[in-house]
Parts: sequence; structure tokens; C-alpha cells
Amino acid sequence: MIIILKKDFEERQMTNLTDWLKSNRLDVHVSKGVNQTILGLVGDTSTVDIDLIRGLDIVEDVKRIQEPFKNANRKFHPADTIVELPGGIKIGGGNFQFMAGPCSVESVEQICLIARKVKESGANILRGGAFKPRTSPYAFQGLRDQGIEFLLEAKRQTGLLLVTEIMDASQLPLFKEIDIIQVGARNMQNFELLKELSHLRKPILLKRGLANTLEELLMSAEYLLAGGNEQVILCERGIRTFETATRNTLDISAVPMLKFMSHLPVIVDPSHATGIARLVKPLSLASAAAGADGLIIEVHNNPPCALCDGKQSLTFETFNEVATAVRNILPHCCR
Amino acid sequence: MIIILKKDFEERQMTNLTDWLKSNRLDVHVSKGVNQTILGLVGDTSTVDIDLIRGLDIVEDVKRIQEPFKNANRKFHPADTIVELPGGIKIGGGNFQFMAGPCSVESVEQICLIARKVKESGANILRGGAFKPRTSPYAFQGLRDQGIEFLLEAKRQTGLLLVTEIMDASQLPLFKEIDIIQVGARNMQNFELLKELSHLRKPILLKRGLANTLEELLMSAEYLLAGGNEQVILCERGIRTFETATRNTLDISAVPMLKFMSHLPVIVDPSHATGIARLVKPLSLASAAAGADGLIIEVHNNPPCALCDGKQSLTFETFNEVATAVRNILPHCCR
Amino acid sequence: MIIILKKDFEERQMTNLTDWLKSNRLDVHVSKGVNQTILGLVGDTSTVDIDLIRGLDIVEDVKRIQEPFKNANRKFHPADTIVELPGGIKIGGGNFQFMAGPCSVESVEQICLIARKVKESGANILRGGAFKPRTSPYAFQGLRDQGIEFLLEAKRQTGLLLVTEIMDASQLPLFKEIDIIQVGARNMQNFELLKELSHLRKPILLKRGLANTLEELLMSAEYLLAGGNEQVILCERGIRTFETATRNTLDISAVPMLKFMSHLPVIVDPSHATGIARLVKPLSLASAAAGADGLIIEVHNNPPCALCDGKQSLTFETFNEVATAVRNILPHCCR
Amino acid sequence: MIIILKKDFEERQMTNLTDWLKSNRLDVHVSKGVNQTILGLVGDTSTVDIDLIRGLDIVEDVKRIQEPFKNANRKFHPADTIVELPGGIKIGGGNFQFMAGPCSVESVEQICLIARKVKESGANILRGGAFKPRTSPYAFQGLRDQGIEFLLEAKRQTGLLLVTEIMDASQLPLFKEIDIIQVGARNMQNFELLKELSHLRKPILLKRGLANTLEELLMSAEYLLAGGNEQVILCERGIRTFETATRNTLDISAVPMLKFMSHLPVIVDPSHATGIARLVKPLSLASAAAGADGLIIEVHNNPPCALCDGKQSLTFETFNEVATAVRNILPHCCR
Repeated sequence: MIIILKKDFEERQMTNLTDWLKSNRLDVHVSKGVNQTILGLVGDTSTVDIDLIRGLDIVEDVKRIQEPFKNANRKFHPADTIVELPGGIKIGGGNFQFMAGPCSVESVEQICLIARKVKESGANILRGGAFKPRTSPYAFQGLRDQGIEFLLEAKRQTGLLLVTEIMDASQLPLFKEIDIIQVGARNMQNFELLKELSHLRKPILLKRGLANTLEELLMSAEYLLAGGNEQVILCERGIRTFETATRNTLDISAVPMLKFMSHLPVIVDPSHATGIARLVKPLSLASAAAGADGLIIEVHNNPPCALCDGKQSLTFETFNEVATAVRNILPHCCR
Repeated sequence: MIIILKKDFEERQMTNLTDWLKSNRLDVHVSKGVNQTILGLVGDTSTVDIDLIRGLDIVEDVKRIQEPFKNANRKFHPADTIVELPGGIKIGGGNFQFMAGPCSVESVEQICLIARKVKESGANILRGGAFKPRTSPYAFQGLRDQGIEFLLEAKRQTGLLLVTEIMDASQLPLFKEIDIIQVGARNMQNFELLKELSHLRKPILLKRGLANTLEELLMSAEYLLAGGNEQVILCERGIRTFETATRNTLDISAVPMLKFMSHLPVIVDPSHATGIARLVKPLSLASAAAGADGLIIEVHNNPPCALCDGKQSLTFETFNEVATAVRNILPHCCR
Repeated sequence: MIIILKKDFEERQMTNLTDWLKSNRLDVHVSKGVNQTILGLVGDTSTVDIDLIRGLDIVEDVKRIQEPFKNANRKFHPADTIVELPGGIKIGGGNFQFMAGPCSVESVEQICLIARKVKESGANILRGGAFKPRTSPYAFQGLRDQGIEFLLEAKRQTGLLLVTEIMDASQLPLFKEIDIIQVGARNMQNFELLKELSHLRKPILLKRGLANTLEELLMSAEYLLAGGNEQVILCERGIRTFETATRNTLDISAVPMLKFMSHLPVIVDPSHATGIARLVKPLSLASAAAGADGLIIEVHNNPPCALCDGKQSLTFETFNEVATAVRNILPHCCR
Repeated sequence: MIIILKKDFEERQMTNLTDWLKSNRLDVHVSKGVNQTILGLVGDTSTVDIDLIRGLDIVEDVKRIQEPFKNANRKFHPADTIVELPGGIKIGGGNFQFMAGPCSVESVEQICLIARKVKESGANILRGGAFKPRTSPYAFQGLRDQGIEFLLEAKRQTGLLLVTEIMDASQLPLFKEIDIIQVGARNMQNFELLKELSHLRKPILLKRGLANTLEELLMSAEYLLAGGNEQVILCERGIRTFETATRNTLDISAVPMLKFMSHLPVIVDPSHATGIARLVKPLSLASAAAGADGLIIEVHNNPPCALCDGKQSLTFETFNEVATAVRNILPHCCR
């Protein structure tokens, strides 16, 4: 961390600051120039509150050099984290997984049918929304408790693992038999929820917020890791930009950048990233090519009638085609 | 709402669609062209699930004409909503209020001192964070329960009303004597929280999310209004753009646009919008000039030592100067 | 095109409008509702000035259904455009090309060395900047005329085709022997330049502007096509977003979307998209996987000493590795 | 400027680097830590090519502390620049001006009528487009040479000064009697054009690009200033964001930030910033309140029939109302 001091500070103020920094177990190197004095901080600065220092009277600016996340940082944990799921299913460290299923759970018949079909095409994990965050209070809000029950029935029938979204910590008792708890994009910075989930020892699928930087995503992962839950899967699902041809803009660079910055597995959601079914295949191939550890894809028995997001859901046939194409490209991908 | 059908649909499919639309109490007008058939829907389309229709097999595209929010819509409620607070304090409909105070409550002495000072400068409402959403798990997270107690003590000593942020519905019991409950930018689309707050009969200060459109802000307000809580104050606090000279970009057009779209009062937070104390005065004047109904400003007894956001806090003297300048400009502002 | 009329218009105004529209060879279908009257326009609306209609007194809003570009539109030209270059080199319609070379031409030795090396690795086209758009007036502005001469020497020595950037129409006489003229991102909407280039019968590489939509990119291509130059190659090179971990955000969805919207070939510049050499390989693979028709990659004999953009340039070895990996993945890609 | 070296560099490499930096008249201060070595550069670093250093083998990162613009920097020119125009008209340093007129010059009668009317309402400068940058090749492109002639006729009849946009340096001979040459948003980084204009001794109105930072705007101003043209007026006209309720997002913070960073006058274009006539009044008041030195506003004799941008043009009556309101608020504004 670099601290640039204002011109005309008093010697005493600088001494106070350097003493305080040293008491935080940091080495301080002072460079005095004619126009500027700069303090170079050496040591573990990840827990230093940068806003606090920036607010000091004698400080003109502070620039981080070290990243503010430590547990999620690849520099301190060079080896890939591999999330291990029941039945020997793994994500990360060279293990690629398909998660597939409908946007919303609609009925027990629907979810069980979809489960069987996506399993046939090679998915090991079933997705399906029971609690649905919807922009409009008038839109379908999910089957909630009943949706969870239907998912569990699909698990019993097919043996697929389950991933589904939590919207509030009060719903946690319902998630006991859910294998991966999803934190949605809108809740990526719901810190109270993250703190609760950090006490679990269960994999969390953490989706990037629509307007959140990669560093912020890793800081939210850090909430989970700092609380002791090390089973975190990151998910790129599109960010909000000025472009309107697609619902969001898939930030494909996030895949190799996150894997460079962090040891956590990274998957991609090509369905939400653009909202257009036709783009799921090229973006799935691109995500695999860029080094993703998995895909989470919306599949529906009857996309045009899906209670939400029908436009972006694949049919069984198309999902099978996508999964096959991805498996074929995997040996030639970046990893 | 306009539905554009794909070429080559079957007559039977269109009949099914128009019948279904009519059963939703909508009039359907069909325009058949050589290349395109268009359905014009007339009636209350605000509760129609646009994604559902977009997903239908014969539909190429759907375009809204009517806004999807109804309770928040000025078209149906032409008169300004005036939020009425204890002691005859009002916001909206020509009533302008200053909310001021520290980013975080730090001690009972601090918050009481700041309360007295901002009251002297004309603020009727004290702000101060007890529960703090922080990007880093290592940053100060607020005094929480104790912070609320200290705020209540400041209220007892000064008679100021209180506004403070809630982060989770489980904290609600602590907010009984809080006059305005703030929903922060990161929780604007925490729909479970919004549903809980919609059952209250207490003013809600709803901050715009960093990457949320004005329509989405009004849809979140609609969650509150649809649940029966009509006391909603909207707050523009800067959006996330590519510009890095300021922390966020204050969307000043949001003030007149929101007042055109909706009857709800609109205030501005110039402190968070830019993160730079020096900009608070020009942006406060600009916000008033554009027609805002109030300002929420960070003020601290000792800004350089503030436990968070010191860089953007005003001193007592500067806040007094800003409040005076705003009062002087008010008679010449847009309203 | 859909025209939504304001309430309370006069019958005579509507008759004037529909008469005028019909005189533009458009069929007009009127849907009258209780609250709204809607005009559906059928025919070729791509040349209708939407702003003109939007400004009319009785018009509330206008919504396009047809795209405003015609020559670039795949709907009217279903077959892929294949750009044919000297020596039988083709781009598009299943033909994939590597363009490679330094950001700036620095000397005749440098550019000839790089040319030989990238040819060995499979590139058919040499890139290299002679005229350099630089944010700072104090940064290196390119060798200009001399840079073009050095490029031509490299062409003589290696037989590689040349692509280089033009910054102003007055430079055109220097571009006679250049095989592909590049219009840079900052000039994508330099309409005077586009008009000049539309009179040529030489391939144009049109880069997407940092803040331009796909529709705007196609409208700029339309300037070229409408003037008679049908040899246009589109290039995605990253857009500007809030994310700062990469210099720009590569919009990978642009590849399949542009190919869906248009018949023109689409290539990707992974070097400028992120500014980070380490990301060029994963993004090159991702671009090919998503269906791109080629790549334009920065390669330098000594990246750390490049006069500009060294950080994003590949060494000869790395470029060879990337080119090999891309060739291996091509048979499994989306096309 | 701060240079952070990679771990494990060789001593000889660092000596080479520091020697080279010193030969550029910079003082170099070295801070060696256990994990990191940092070089602090003191002196005039504005002409140092940051990309060059960033590309060096032993450099991990470079961070600027000093701004890269010097002539435009308020630190080195504390006093406001006042642009002086014929007839004693001034902009900046407390002098506020209205520029008003149509988007496009349509006929000599139209422009002369508008000129008389905006003069009556207090404008000293007439705007009007002769050369029009239009996204679509099928939209009206301006009257070009003839448009300039009509503007000059309006100047003869009313004595108003003229501001109009140049699109290419080849048009310069037509601009001899134009008082202020406008560089449009799309040409803000047309560096060849900027270099040509830097040789003039005539005021330039430099509009901010849709996706350009304030620093980039000042770097483009630096092109003009470095070439010797000191008469530069900056113009904020809205940036591109995800928000679609307005055409662009007016970055009101740009006004006080630019005036803090630079000594150049700053005006605002509220018409293009949002594209909505109804918002021009509140945004004009807000701009003045925030400290702008002037406004450039679209006014048309018959807005619904304007050949372009009718939706955002004011009538004579509305412009008179806006100008009066702004004059009334000016004494209470930030300056």
C-alpha cells in the first residue's frame, strides 16, 4: 500500500501516522521528494481499512498494491480449490460440471421430467428456482417451500445433486438437503446473508452482481472464506452495460482473470448472461474454451410456456447438443 | 403493450393467444401486414408477465407502452405524495428537508454532538449508520444494536427524527422508534426485505441501486406500495459508470424524471454519489435546483478520523454553509 | 415501425400523418383503443428518419421493429459475405485468418523480423500501426509516412498482406498498396471518413467503438455498404464498462449476435480488449469457439520495450502457441 | 509516479531503469521491502509514457500520482481562463453565456428567425449545425457549405456570434468567420483534427465523448493547448450508461470536478444530455447551480418539425422561460 501525503504536513503528524502503521505490524518506507512524500507499506495490508487512512488530514491519496482479499487470493493458495460434492462429483482443478434445469420449479412432474432429461445429457447437478427474485411484485415469485420439496423429489428419483437460490437467511432450514446453495446476483453484497452462510460447511455458488467488479466478487467470497466456509464456486453471469442487444454483457475475461486472481472454481451462466437461447451454444463453447470449470444452463420441457425466462431456456434436444459440443471442445480448451 | 408475431404462425395459435389475452381483461387489436402481424393490447397491462408472452412460440417480440408500475405511477396519482413525519415534518409536495449525520454511529457522545450541530444548521432528521454494509469483511461493520440505542439517545436529547439503514428483516424489532427506515442501494432488489417492509406503516427511504434503472427503482417502490405501505421516499445516490474521477456518477436527471414518472418524493445523497466532500456543495445546490425534495448529507465531528467514508463527510462549518446556500437557492429552483 | 399517438389528437392531424407515411410507400394500419391509438407501419422503414416522426406534435413514442440497417442485414442477404484478398486469402464463410504484428511500426528491421516470425506461425496478414491515435499528445504518435514504407518493405520480403489504421481521409494516397484499411475504434463514427472509404473497392476493417452498440457498429458498416464498398470486416475489441481489472470488457456475445444480425465477417482483437498479454490465449480460444472468422493479435520482438502497448503484446513463442491452440480448437467451434 | 517492481529482478536491471529515469530529469526514490521494491518518481512526469514503463520486464505495475495533463491543469495555472470573443463577450471567470439555436440549419429564414428570437431572450451566441454527424447514412446530413452561409447571414442580421461543428479538417476554410469551432462528442479523440485546430488562435468548444473520462477530455484539451491554442471551452453533454430513461446521463459532477482539475471554462448541453425537452429547464438550473460557465441549448421555431432532434428542442417561449429562470438563480449558484 502506498500513502501519498499532502504537501505542508507537520513532521509530528507523519510520525503519529508511521507509529500507528508500525503498531499494525507494517513496515513503513518513507520517500521524501521536493513536492511529495510517499509512504510505502510493506506487510499484510489486506486487513487495513483503506477508507480510514484516506480520511486522515495529512493524506492526499492511498493506492493499494496488494489485493484486499487474502483467503481467496491465489498468491497465498497457489493450488486450485476443488469443491467436492456427494457421490464423488468435483468442480475445479480440471473437473468440469454441467448444472442444468428450469428457471423456476413449476410442478413435481415438470422438475422430475427435466431432471431425467438433463441427466441423460450428462448433467450431474439439477438447478431450479424455488425462491425467485423478480423485478416486478406482480411476476411469479416461485413455489417457495413447495418448490424445494419438488426438487428433493427429483433428487430422489434421479440421484442428481441440487443447486437452488436462497433469498434470505430465514429460509436456511429448508436448504438442509440442498447440495449447493446459490447466492444470486442481486444478493452478492447482502452481507448479512453471506455472514450466515459463512458458518455452514456446504458449497456456495456465488453469482457476480450485475454491477460488481471482480475484486468485489472476491471480497464477497472473502466473507464466506473468512467465516470458515471454504467451498465457494464463483459464477460469471453477465454484467450491465450500455449494450441493449443482449440483456447483459457476458464478461468472458472474468473467467481467466478470476482464475488468475483466485484459486476458487469459476463457472459461467450463459442463459442469464444474454437472455437469448440462440446464444447459449456459442457462449458455452467460449466459456469452456476460456477455462471455465462448469456451466449452469436453463433447460425447460416447453420453453415457450416457461413461467419465467422462457426466452432463454433450451429444449432437451438443444441442451443435449450443447453438452455434446462442450464435451468435444474440452480437450482443446485453456486450462 | 404491443405483441409482434413471427411470420408464418398458424391462425389457431393466434386465436389461442388473443383468447387468453381477452380472458385477462385486455382488448386486443390486430394489425395484419404483408410481412408482420401486430397485436395492440389495450387495458391494464401492468400485471401482465412480459417474459411469459415473449417466450411464446409465435411471438417475435413484445414492447411495453404502458409502464409496468401502477401504484407508483404519476399517471394514476397526479398529486404529489407528501410523507408526513412526527412533529409535523413533511417531505414532498413543496416541503424540503435536510437529513444529516455521520456515516457510522461511533459513540453516544459523537452522535449526540453531531445531532445538536446539524439541528443548529437546520436539519430536522438525523442520519447515522448502526448496521453498515461494507465491501470488505475486515472493515468496520457498525455498532449494530448499540448504534441504534445511541441514535435513540440523540433523538431524546435533540428531538430530531431518525433515519437509519436496515440490512435484514430480522433486525426489524430494533427499528420500532426509528422514524424512517432506509433500504440501502445494495438491498434495493432484496425483495424478501421489501415484502416485509411493505407490511409496515412507516416511511421507507429507498435508495437506488448502483446499477438499477429508474424503472427498476419504481418497481421496487411498487413492492412497498403494493403491500400497502404508501410512505416511500426515493433517493438518487449515484450510479456506476466507467468514470473513475468520482466514486459514482450522480444521475441528476433522475430527479426530474422520477418526479415526472411518479408522485413519490425524491431526495439526493450527494455524499455517496461522489465520495468527495468538496463536491457536496455544488451537487447539493444542483439537486435543489433540479427539484429535489431533500438532501441526505454526511456530517462528522472530525471527518479525517471517521471510521468510514471520512473522505466524503462535511465538517459542522461546511454543512452549515451548504445548508444556508441551499435555503437561499430554494426559491429559485425548479418545482 | 410502431407509432403511438398521444391521447386527444385531432383527426385531421392523424390523416396528415398517415397520408405522409403512405407517400413514403408505407402501408399504415391503425389500431384505435380507448386510451391509445397505434399506427403499424409496414414496408421498408429503414430509411425513415425516426427522430423526425418522434418530434411530431401528435406522437407520444415510436418503436422500431425492423432494424435501421439494410445492406448489412442478414435478413436481406442470408449468405455469409466472404472478403477476398490477393493471393486467394479469404475471411468469412468458414475461412479463418490470423492478423498479427506490433502495435507500432518502429523500424524496418523490427517490422520485417516480426513479419517473418508471424508468417512462420501461420499468419497471412501483418498488422502494424503507422498512424497512432494516442490519448496523450506527449505519447509516441507513430512513424506515419515512414511507417507505411516499412510495412510495404515487410510485404515485399514476406508476401504477407497488410492491415493498418487510417486516421484521416487526407492520408488515403499513402494506403494504395495496403490490403485492408483499418478504421479504429475512436473513428467508428467519423462519418466523413466513412463516406470517403465507401467509395473505395478495398476491404475495410471496422472496429467497434468503446461505447457503441452493435446496432451502431452495423450503421457505420451501412455507411460503407451504402456507398458501394461491400468488403467490410467487423471487429469486436472490447467495450468500456465499470470493470477496471481489464482495460476494456471483451463483449464475446457480439460475435454470435453480429453474425446473426449481419452477413459480414467478424473478427476479434483480444489484445486491445483487455490490455493484458496473459489473457490473449484464453480469449483467442473463446473467440474462435464463439464463431469468430479471425483474430488480430499484437506480437512484438521484445514486448517489454515496445514503444506502446507492450503490456499486451505477445512474444513470438507465445503467439506461436496461441496460433497452434486456435488451429486445434477450430474444428470444434461454433459455426 | 510510482513504479512497483516485480519480485526477483536483477540489480543490474533496476540500475538501468533508474539511470534512464534520471536521464529524463526525474528524481528516483527507492523503497526496498521484503516482498516489494517501489520506485517513487519526483519531477515532471506528465510527459513520461506510462505504457512504455509498464511494459518493462522488471515492472509489475505503475501508478500515476501526478495528472498526465499539464497545460490544462489548474495546479499550474490557478487563475480561471477567460475566453474572450468579439464584442467583449466573455466565457469563464464569472462570465456566463447562453448559446442557443437549432440542431440543424434548415433555411436562411429559419436560422435568421431563430437568431432574432434567442437574442431577445438573452443569448449572445447562435448555435446551428451545418455539418451533422448522424448515426444513419439515411438521416439528414446537414446543409453543409450552404448551412455555413445561412449562419453568416444570421450573424450579419443580428450581430450574434456563431458556434458550429466541424467534422473534418478539410472543412476549415469554411470556418473563417465562425467565432467558436465546435468539436463534437464523436470527434473528441479525433487527434488529427485536434492537431489541426491547435494551430488556430480561435476558441474551440470541445465536447466530452460519450464514453470518455474527465481525464481523457482534459488530455484532448491538452492536444489543443500543447499546440498553442489556449482558447478552449469544455462541454459536458451526457455520458453513456445503462440507464435508458434518458438518451444519455448528464454527469453533473463533471462541472465542479473539471473546474477543480482545470482552469478552462465549462459549459453544459442539457439538450443532448437527455434528449427530452421537458428536462432542459431543471438541468439548466442544476448546471448553473453546480457552477457552469454557460449553457448550449437547442431552440427551434417549430420543434415537432425539426429535421433532427425535434424531441429535445425548446420553443421560443420555453427558451425564454429557461433563460429567465437561469438568470434569476445565477446569484445563488456555486462559483
